[in-house]
Amino acid sequence: MVNVGILGATGMVGQRFIQLLDNHPDFEITALAASSRSAGKKYVDATTWYLNEEMPESVKDIVVCETNPEDMDNDVDIVFSSLPTEFAAKVEKDFAKDYVVASNASAHRMKKNIPLVIPEVNPQFLDMIDLQQKENNWDGFIVTNPNCSTIALTLTLKPIVDNFSVNAIRVSTMQAISGAGYNGVPSMAILDNLVPYIGSEEEKMESETLHLLGDYDGEKVVNADFKLSASCHRVPVIDGHTEAVFVELDDEFDIDDIKDKMSSFKALPQELNLYSAPENPVIVKDEMDRPQPRMDRNAGNGMSVTVGRLRKEQAFDNGFKYVLVGHNTIRGAAGASVLNAELINERIL
Amino acid sequence: MVNVGILGATGMVGQRFIQLLDNHPDFEITALAASSRSAGKKYVDATTWYLNEEMPESVKDIVVCETNPEDMDNDVDIVFSSLPTEFAAKVEKDFAKDYVVASNASAHRMKKNIPLVIPEVNPQFLDMIDLQQKENNWDGFIVTNPNCSTIALTLTLKPIVDNFSVNAIRVSTMQAISGAGYNGVPSMAILDNLVPYIGSEEEKMESETLHLLGDYDGEKVVNADFKLSASCHRVPVIDGHTEAVFVELDDEFDIDDIKDKMSSFKALPQELNLYSAPENPVIVKDEMDRPQPRMDRNAGNGMSVTVGRLRKEQAFDNGFKYVLVGHNTIRGAAGASVLNAELINERIL
Amino acid sequence: MVNVGILGATGMVGQRFIQLLDNHPDFEITALAASSRSAGKKYVDATTWYLNEEMPESVKDIVVCETNPEDMDNDVDIVFSSLPTEFAAKVEKDFAKDYVVASNASAHRMKKNIPLVIPEVNPQFLDMIDLQQKENNWDGFIVTNPNCSTIALTLTLKPIVDNFSVNAIRVSTMQAISGAGYNGVPSMAILDNLVPYIGSEEEKMESETLHLLGDYDGEKVVNADFKLSASCHRVPVIDGHTEAVFVELDDEFDIDDIKDKMSSFKALPQELNLYSAPENPVIVKDEMDRPQPRMDRNAGNGMSVTVGRLRKEQAFDNGFKYVLVGHNTIRGAAGASVLNAELINERIL
Amino acid sequence: MVNVGILGATGMVGQRFIQLLDNHPDFEITALAASSRSAGKKYVDATTWYLNEEMPESVKDIVVCETNPEDMDNDVDIVFSSLPTEFAAKVEKDFAKDYVVASNASAHRMKKNIPLVIPEVNPQFLDMIDLQQKENNWDGFIVTNPNCSTIALTLTLKPIVDNFSVNAIRVSTMQAISGAGYNGVPSMAILDNLVPYIGSEEEKMESETLHLLGDYDGEKVVNADFKLSASCHRVPVIDGHTEAVFVELDDEFDIDDIKDKMSSFKALPQELNLYSAPENPVIVKDEMDRPQPRMDRNAGNGMSVTVGRLRKEQAFDNGFKYVLVGHNTIRGAAGASVLNAELINERIL
Repeated sequence: MVNVGILGATGMVGQRFIQLLDNHPDFEITALAASSRSAGKKYVDATTWYLNEEMPESVKDIVVCETNPEDMDNDVDIVFSSLPTEFAAKVEKDFAKDYVVASNASAHRMKKNIPLVIPEVNPQFLDMIDLQQKENNWDGFIVTNPNCSTIALTLTLKPIVDNFSVNAIRVSTMQAISGAGYNGVPSMAILDNLVPYIGSEEEKMESETLHLLGDYDGEKVVNADFKLSASCHRVPVIDGHTEAVFVELDDEFDIDDIKDKMSSFKALPQELNLYSAPENPVIVKDEMDRPQPRMDRNAGNGMSVTVGRLRKEQAFDNGFKYVLVGHNTIRGAAGASVLNAELINERIL
Repeated sequence: MVNVGILGATGMVGQRFIQLLDNHPDFEITALAASSRSAGKKYVDATTWYLNEEMPESVKDIVVCETNPEDMDNDVDIVFSSLPTEFAAKVEKDFAKDYVVASNASAHRMKKNIPLVIPEVNPQFLDMIDLQQKENNWDGFIVTNPNCSTIALTLTLKPIVDNFSVNAIRVSTMQAISGAGYNGVPSMAILDNLVPYIGSEEEKMESETLHLLGDYDGEKVVNADFKLSASCHRVPVIDGHTEAVFVELDDEFDIDDIKDKMSSFKALPQELNLYSAPENPVIVKDEMDRPQPRMDRNAGNGMSVTVGRLRKEQAFDNGFKYVLVGHNTIRGAAGASVLNAELINERIL
Repeated sequence: MVNVGILGATGMVGQRFIQLLDNHPDFEITALAASSRSAGKKYVDATTWYLNEEMPESVKDIVVCETNPEDMDNDVDIVFSSLPTEFAAKVEKDFAKDYVVASNASAHRMKKNIPLVIPEVNPQFLDMIDLQQKENNWDGFIVTNPNCSTIALTLTLKPIVDNFSVNAIRVSTMQAISGAGYNGVPSMAILDNLVPYIGSEEEKMESETLHLLGDYDGEKVVNADFKLSASCHRVPVIDGHTEAVFVELDDEFDIDDIKDKMSSFKALPQELNLYSAPENPVIVKDEMDRPQPRMDRNAGNGMSVTVGRLRKEQAFDNGFKYVLVGHNTIRGAAGASVLNAELINERIL
Repeated sequence: MVNVGILGATGMVGQRFIQLLDNHPDFEITALAASSRSAGKKYVDATTWYLNEEMPESVKDIVVCETNPEDMDNDVDIVFSSLPTEFAAKVEKDFAKDYVVASNASAHRMKKNIPLVIPEVNPQFLDMIDLQQKENNWDGFIVTNPNCSTIALTLTLKPIVDNFSVNAIRVSTMQAISGAGYNGVPSMAILDNLVPYIGSEEEKMESETLHLLGDYDGEKVVNADFKLSASCHRVPVIDGHTEAVFVELDDEFDIDDIKDKMSSFKALPQELNLYSAPENPVIVKDEMDRPQPRMDRNAGNGMSVTVGRLRKEQAFDNGFKYVLVGHNTIRGAAGASVLNAELINERIL
């Protein structure tokens, strides 16, 4: 068993980490770090538990530690981070001296030699780790996962990009409130309403997606070369981001072929049979009115992305469109980091 | 005063007609038609009132009549129709023999010589009426208004199409539940959820918009020639459709110019000072997080469309995007028919 | 294994039956009955599946049969019924000639010699079965469970009634939309709203509760003798009924004693270790702001009722109050019938 | 015209004050006070406007001042306060030296010689003002209004208490999210959920109601002598508190008599024809499923309380029950202070 710690353990993504790591076959939670306000208390006493599922017994009595390497039990090998961006910028580097840091924070995404990875999409970016360690003189390293909306989109684009030449993509999101954190969206702002703005979200989607679907040549990442434009909106849904995607290819295509490539898509995590890897990263539904966030967010234990309404565009010869739903705090956050760590554990540690 | 009647008077759009026509300076409601179940009863007894505003006193004691011309008081000049499509197909023709029919139903939209009109966009389509009357040997005629999502979109596109050369448009909607009628969306379907499908909505948007922005040459309509693709979704919002619009022009442009053309857009209803015409058909907001349906749906008494987040696309040289909110049962339904009738009353009757 | 069938199998409670009986150690679903529209089709083709959990593989290919005994496979021993009241009134009697009918319908509740049972509360009412069979000359029999709100309330009252002398109870409910069936509550009726009326609900709560907590003397039921008044309201919550309960005892009491009696309450299903019996029928929480329906409805796999805010009333010497949450379609419907069937299977079959 | 100022002008209740005072025939807003962060800015620049109705033009250019008497324009006669409790405790006293303070804050409610008033219920409590001024050596004075839930309940109880002998009351509330302020209730806490706890709310209802319905003998208030127990819950409704009320009288009664006394209830504000006084403080509806917050909160411009489901209790000889809806931020907050000020302006200034 690999001992793991969680940074930001009392927050909403921190709680998802705990839920996903409970009864994990390879990882055992032995350290939970949070703010000074929580440090020194038992986790059960320090935490307002937000998930519908009960807090696992195994973590209740763990005494929360401060968020720095000195206070972390040194038997820990991997730390999962759901720290706020500004804080993560410094703290994750401190941990990387000695620990593997699997981070859901955006602070180090797309930085030089820091892999931004979705295991089904660009596992080869992990090759950056050697350079990262040498450059910084670290024994550990940092691996990051993308923004929640980006992950769901990119998973569905991977089998398309692999088999067709993509010209341009527009995506309009309808994102769940949990993506903003427990206190992020006041109920007064969203009941009988929606908010057509999420800070930095469009920029993240537009940059991270091209990076993830690009190439790593051993030195730098060459972005994928299609055009991508995003419009992001918050809707009154608890969990599960929905995205309407418009794709323009360079050539003619058969819509059944698109469907087949998505449905049959499997990649390294499926081959390696990683514990959190869903059998199908992308599930394509034929029902007229799916996917729906409440009905489909838990597909593949929250690790599959569900696609529906896949159809040709009448107005564009080489265009098609579809709708996707992905669980934003599982596949889009904690589950993404866990799957990264499983791949690292299998391949590198 | 012109006496008017309402077909489908007990339904949700019917009630909006009543609300909008109450205290109207030119129109007086003198007849209310509904199904046989309601006919013969006073309106107040026949109706479950759905609007937040109280039922106007003036209609409470009107005895509901059957939905056919024989039962309608013959002092009526204009009938407003919010009948179900299949029923409207036959009944509106019966009424057109003697009455002006201002219809919100889709049954006769884009039929030969039947004007589909937004007064700010294509008032010249009313010229079809002569041919319609001759062809059918009718004393009255039918005028229709577009689908709710189409109206809001088309109002914002009109100042763009008039001033720039549009190549392609993608639109992703987030539509209010009231658009499906009072019993249209079960709460079990939409609470903590959204539904990415609305029957025939995308087809209507894709066809009606090009028709409305096209030319009428005295014989037929020549569609506007840009490409348009829509993806339509239902969200848990009571009133107010939100649409994310991606526009690709043929040429370079200045984003402030787009904004200016939208903000300053005025058209025939504003010139004629029609009672229901908003001062500004399109309102452009600068706030980062607007428009929002609960906050902006009532702009211009529900007759203005509010635009926000107008911005250039980074990925597309000639692309920009924006978000709009329009009130689906006022500007997108009953108010659309009323404004059509006001224009007809001013110009034709 | 006992073969079981489900009447009303395509409805929302029917689907809960399927979910709860999937992988059941003693029961195996071998027949699914529904309306003529569905009969003859595979269940997967006949059904719009409403639950968040996937449809179990085991039922997908079962061919739906008509809802009458002749069409039911005769290897079935128990049929679970979630039929509409009027239909259940006749059909359940037809089935009772040969089958055990565990019914969630209200048609036969509190009828002479038909046990209305909550296994933790009044298992002795099953003694009515002999008389029921003799009187009707049936080989099978009917057993019913109470209304959803009644079950949750009565479970929490049982340990109180057993240990204290109750004078009067007022209860105000906040009930989930799923209680009205999938199409029961239009979203237009409940978004940003609540509805302070549920047909017949108050009458059911006021009569069934006293019956369940009464005595069966071998011939008739003598109601419990306290006073009970209910006010029932529908709120925008998907699953989980919440009830605010005001209790007036005849004598002084210690609030910790009440808490202790509720927390430690165990009864026959727990002794018999019935498969669906929760470890604790009543869970008492100390957190200031619990129970909450979304957080607590799944306690004990939806079979426990969660109590919180247990406190003395300042104004009434012998009064206390509390709030409860129970899962209305599990403990309050399908799970109630299943637990009844488990008790019958253990004790009678 | 009386010049008025608003303390806490940028908050949600502050905005309601502005909305209610816009176009007021007797009051003119000439000063707006808020925190140092806002002071010195124009109101339109200092404020995130939360109401669906547009910000009135008349206040946009008013420069916000600090919240203390020195910074307030001295032409102001009345200040309305919606300050947070702790802050109000000190600041309102400072203002009372020179100004009339009509406060919605709870800091000084039920303090000696500070009238807690609902104009329809206990206008005679204003007689305390003389003593208040003498005791404190103030030229101004403080008048407070009750908690939002208390006001709605007490208005409906007044005609009952005046005509019948009340023994005991239980009330279970379903309160709107706006009552907690704009950021008070996270959407994650209340979507598909309710929260059965509101800090201090039950204590306020239980104490304030008896005080308001008590007598003032020129020296002290003698509380009404019935028993009252409250259970308070937050539900996902934007505006409008709903309360289920159980009343036990000392004697037999006729339910139509109760209804008649509520419906015909008029009091001093109606006699004086105060501007904000609704024609009927209590409206009784016969529809089976009313009152509903979204449909009834705006009755009487938000100043009437709507009662429905008035019915005898079967279990209690002298008991009846009903449901009420009142607008929590109009009649329950800003409108309450404004009506108090109108009464003071008419009677005292």
